[in-house]
Amino acid sequence: MTAPATDVIAIGNAIVDVMAPAQDADIARLGLAKGGMTLVDADRARELYDAMGPAREISGGSAANTLAGLAALGATCGFIGQVAQDQLGEVFAHDIRAGGIAFATPARESEPPTARCLIFVTPDGQRTMNTFLGASQFLPAEALDETVIADAAVLYLEGYLWDPEEPRKAMRRAIAAARTAGRKVAFTLSDAFVIARHGDDFRALIEAGQIDILFANEHELAALTGIADFHEGIASLAAKVPTVVVTRSEQGAHAVSGGEQAHVPAEPIEQVVDTTGAGDLFAAGFLFGHVRGRSLEDCLRLGAICAAEVISHYGARPEADLKALVAARMG
Amino acid sequence: MTAPATDVIAIGNAIVDVMAPAQDADIARLGLAKGGMTLVDADRARELYDAMGPAREISGGSAANTLAGLAALGATCGFIGQVAQDQLGEVFAHDIRAGGIAFATPARESEPPTARCLIFVTPDGQRTMNTFLGASQFLPAEALDETVIADAAVLYLEGYLWDPEEPRKAMRRAIAAARTAGRKVAFTLSDAFVIARHGDDFRALIEAGQIDILFANEHELAALTGIADFHEGIASLAAKVPTVVVTRSEQGAHAVSGGEQAHVPAEPIEQVVDTTGAGDLFAAGFLFGHVRGRSLEDCLRLGAICAAEVISHYGARPEADLKALVAARMG
Repeated sequence: MTAPATDVIAIGNAIVDVMAPAQDADIARLGLAKGGMTLVDADRARELYDAMGPAREISGGSAANTLAGLAALGATCGFIGQVAQDQLGEVFAHDIRAGGIAFATPARESEPPTARCLIFVTPDGQRTMNTFLGASQFLPAEALDETVIADAAVLYLEGYLWDPEEPRKAMRRAIAAARTAGRKVAFTLSDAFVIARHGDDFRALIEAGQIDILFANEHELAALTGIADFHEGIASLAAKVPTVVVTRSEQGAHAVSGGEQAHVPAEPIEQVVDTTGAGDLFAAGFLFGHVRGRSLEDCLRLGAICAAEVISHYGARPEADLKALVAARMG
Repeated sequence: MTAPATDVIAIGNAIVDVMAPAQDADIARLGLAKGGMTLVDADRARELYDAMGPAREISGGSAANTLAGLAALGATCGFIGQVAQDQLGEVFAHDIRAGGIAFATPARESEPPTARCLIFVTPDGQRTMNTFLGASQFLPAEALDETVIADAAVLYLEGYLWDPEEPRKAMRRAIAAARTAGRKVAFTLSDAFVIARHGDDFRALIEAGQIDILFANEHELAALTGIADFHEGIASLAAKVPTVVVTRSEQGAHAVSGGEQAHVPAEPIEQVVDTTGAGDLFAAGFLFGHVRGRSLEDCLRLGAICAAEVISHYGARPEADLKALVAARMG
């Protein structure tokens, strides 16, 4: 096994976020699930966009956000995901490449357009996401270059993308390629709805020892394990997954790895402006520590610092100099 | 003359801003004119976009920004400007309508695409703008509905749009329609390059008494009048223009109207994040005061408050609740 050329290669949705402030009354009036992620079709996306206030567009996508954080920290990264040949696709491709992330998946020629996520941000900083998956959900298995996957220390997979059929096939092939090459597979569960639909797949992957690092929040942990108690839930996974990382918003995060346990509180923050990307950036910090061989507690702290940065402003990609921030906080 | 149904109708460029942080070294390396606005063709726009860091997209356009401020303050507004039938055009149209501004100009079918402005924001908050005018520069005179113009208290014109031929014709027709209806014509000089190219037009309009309210910064004032001394320059214009408003960045703003003079200092602000839209929002506050019959000094203060809000964050459209801000600052 040769040393990997890349730290992390990720497969995820290629999405541009469309973000606007909203009031709780808007969330209720529009029938939105506050704090959640709901898949919407083109008609519903149009309806919600028409109801939205003046917005701004910032590249998003869960795994892509994680890579943006990793690259900002100094990791070498590559992204696999599909946009359409349109202006939002150009925006996504520009932003990911401008962040120093390799991105070679060709843009899809025909309809539907590039994926977008309509995000209503309430005054409490909570984000309510409505995703039109567009071209992203048709990522073909042929878009994978298995030599690229074999050459990355970690393959990172976004649970959201397990839902559509073609990307699921692509991800299964990617897992096989990574394991054959002796690389690690990291997986984020993304959302309870994904577990409701594909929990059996995930449990089977875990039983088969295919997942090396698993990211979840406490709700996803309960949904996956069927265990209400937080610590019992983690313990049940830790028996089968080498590294389990569970975030609990303002209560910090826990990890269990190789018998070792660690916990960090949430980083202090002046004001929560927009929680979009909190979990994605937590994963970025943790994975950066992991590929650099840092202690489990350091990995968690790196995650907490990156998550705190991204929730202090609009948008799910880091704005501050993460390297400098980490140096200042961790010395 | 019946009471106008609309407070302000504006004609301007329909632009989406593409904004990214940059260092002074980037500005130098790319050969950009720091702090200025440079028109670029499609090739140069592509080159600069490729050199730009991860960006965000926020609707812009000088007069459109002014209307966004006016509408946020409670004025009734309409916008005339042209996008293309593409995703950025949809973004622009959504954002202006979502701000409560009437916008009925049809999107142009063929190439070029919707205008965009590539904005490099340096750590001092200064913005360096590179504008690809796209569909905006082909606004046809037929896009004007003269009854709409006749029904607005103020017609507001963006100097930038005087440069391309078709919109210039449209604006001349609009001025005639407004004057015939007994309405006021407000004009912003926009940039010294516009005066270098069209100063004779502007001086002729002023001599002919076609401009009721003129907005300029101190550099534009000097370029237009050929007078180096600030106060002499204002006096020379005030003899021919009923209301002259001149901004001086952190030194505040001056106005002369009907023999009366007023001055306000710049509003205090914690940190200048991005100066994009400062002049546009100053005009918004001033015009709001004007159409509401406020004193000259109040008009200037309203301008200073709105300008201070927009330079405290990324993007040239207001984010804070301007009504509440004005109420808090002016009582």
